[in-house]
Amino acid sequence: MKILLELSYIGTNYAGFQVQPNKATVQSAIQDALERVYGERLPVKGCSRTDSGVHALQYFATYDTARAIPTERIPLALNSALPADIAVRSARIVPDSFHVRHDVLRKEYEYRLLNSRIRDPFLEGRVYRIPHILGEHEISLMQCAAKAFVGEHDFSGFMSAGSSVADTVRRVDWLDVIVDDNLIKIRVAANGFLYNMVRIIVGTLLDTAHGRIAADDMAAIIALCDRSRAGFTAPPEGLYLRRVEYGDFAAEQ
Amino acid sequence: MKILLELSYIGTNYAGFQVQPNKATVQSAIQDALERVYGERLPVKGCSRTDSGVHALQYFATYDTARAIPTERIPLALNSALPADIAVRSARIVPDSFHVRHDVLRKEYEYRLLNSRIRDPFLEGRVYRIPHILGEHEISLMQCAAKAFVGEHDFSGFMSAGSSVADTVRRVDWLDVIVDDNLIKIRVAANGFLYNMVRIIVGTLLDTAHGRIAADDMAAIIALCDRSRAGFTAPPEGLYLRRVEYGDFAAEQ
Repeated sequence: MKILLELSYIGTNYAGFQVQPNKATVQSAIQDALERVYGERLPVKGCSRTDSGVHALQYFATYDTARAIPTERIPLALNSALPADIAVRSARIVPDSFHVRHDVLRKEYEYRLLNSRIRDPFLEGRVYRIPHILGEHEISLMQCAAKAFVGEHDFSGFMSAGSSVADTVRRVDWLDVIVDDNLIKIRVAANGFLYNMVRIIVGTLLDTAHGRIAADDMAAIIALCDRSRAGFTAPPEGLYLRRVEYGDFAAEQ
Repeated sequence: MKILLELSYIGTNYAGFQVQPNKATVQSAIQDALERVYGERLPVKGCSRTDSGVHALQYFATYDTARAIPTERIPLALNSALPADIAVRSARIVPDSFHVRHDVLRKEYEYRLLNSRIRDPFLEGRVYRIPHILGEHEISLMQCAAKAFVGEHDFSGFMSAGSSVADTVRRVDWLDVIVDDNLIKIRVAANGFLYNMVRIIVGTLLDTAHGRIAADDMAAIIALCDRSRAGFTAPPEGLYLRRVEYGDFAAEQ
């Protein structure tokens, strides 16, 4: 049978989700924990290749097993075998035909900016701090520029080199810039994301706030499909995979 | 001149504030940072002896120096010399007569309980998790018992052994049990606290929630002044020094 795990993790100590030789990854940590619980090496598939240092508030992974451990016991069993920065939140049986990556309908990311001259020990490695404080005007420029991203566009100008993806058109459902005390949260949902797309969008919005890009030019910049016209790639520590939606599971989550 | 630092820190990696031989403490970390900035060893005084593993959202410390660095530059200079889990939030000059510990009028602590069967990687080391979920009834028992602590009482039944304090009467201004999603926040303010007083109050409230102590008995238990009648000592990782009030600075904070 196929088991679907709902996870959350802090990405700081991992070279992303996917197994890499001689590096700590989330996938290998989960496979190690499964081996301790099931007594055999079970390959794990993940819903997304999150980058080194990126966090997940919600992440899904699957594995196949012939051994029927009651699903309500799986989270506690795996959590006692996992390191403290990864947790299994729930487990359920899914049809064998289910594919944890291909069946994703929509993903939402959140990028957290700390708008403060002073660093916050409690948010170290969990936000990207902007030392020059953004005021209301700068934030309204970001909110204005954000509107241009919503809808179906070729986002090849917002993709880092090194990706072999053929189709670079994605549908962005929302891109919101939310002020929450001294945090600025940028939430973006889409039917899929290109390599580093969220981090380049965030960097471009910050370049807009700092006056290096005009908010009114954003639609034209997207249409140019030229990476050199977009902004910088914001660092990974502010990025969180926030929500992953599947057709049949949408109601249950 | 005397400089007052406002700090915040994560206590996880420190054996409390006060310098101890062969142990990492917040005080020694600050003195190391001051030495890098000022070029000399400057003794630091703290507002409170927080225990090993206890956090501070707000903490005050002072040092004396003859060198006049503009106070607005002190936070950035010290923060670049401090480890990531300690930050200076502000600095100001105070009268030489100011005493950072004796002049405290009121301190507020917050204790954070995670009310969840599943651990949360993002709160690891920053909350005390209760694996058996507390419902509305249990929380109302805690809120009822909490009322008995407010006012001036001899709290010697809520003090760990090892303290040499003579006067064990303290004035508790409020003790609130606040539900915030799956967190339970216990906030207590007083003109002073005995050794481990907050952690024993929290343990006693949890014993009340679990039915081991009757909420109606709390006033009598306080009056007995007998440590063995109070509850267990809750662990340090959920405890935060939240606010420290001084007479002249109250308006500025």
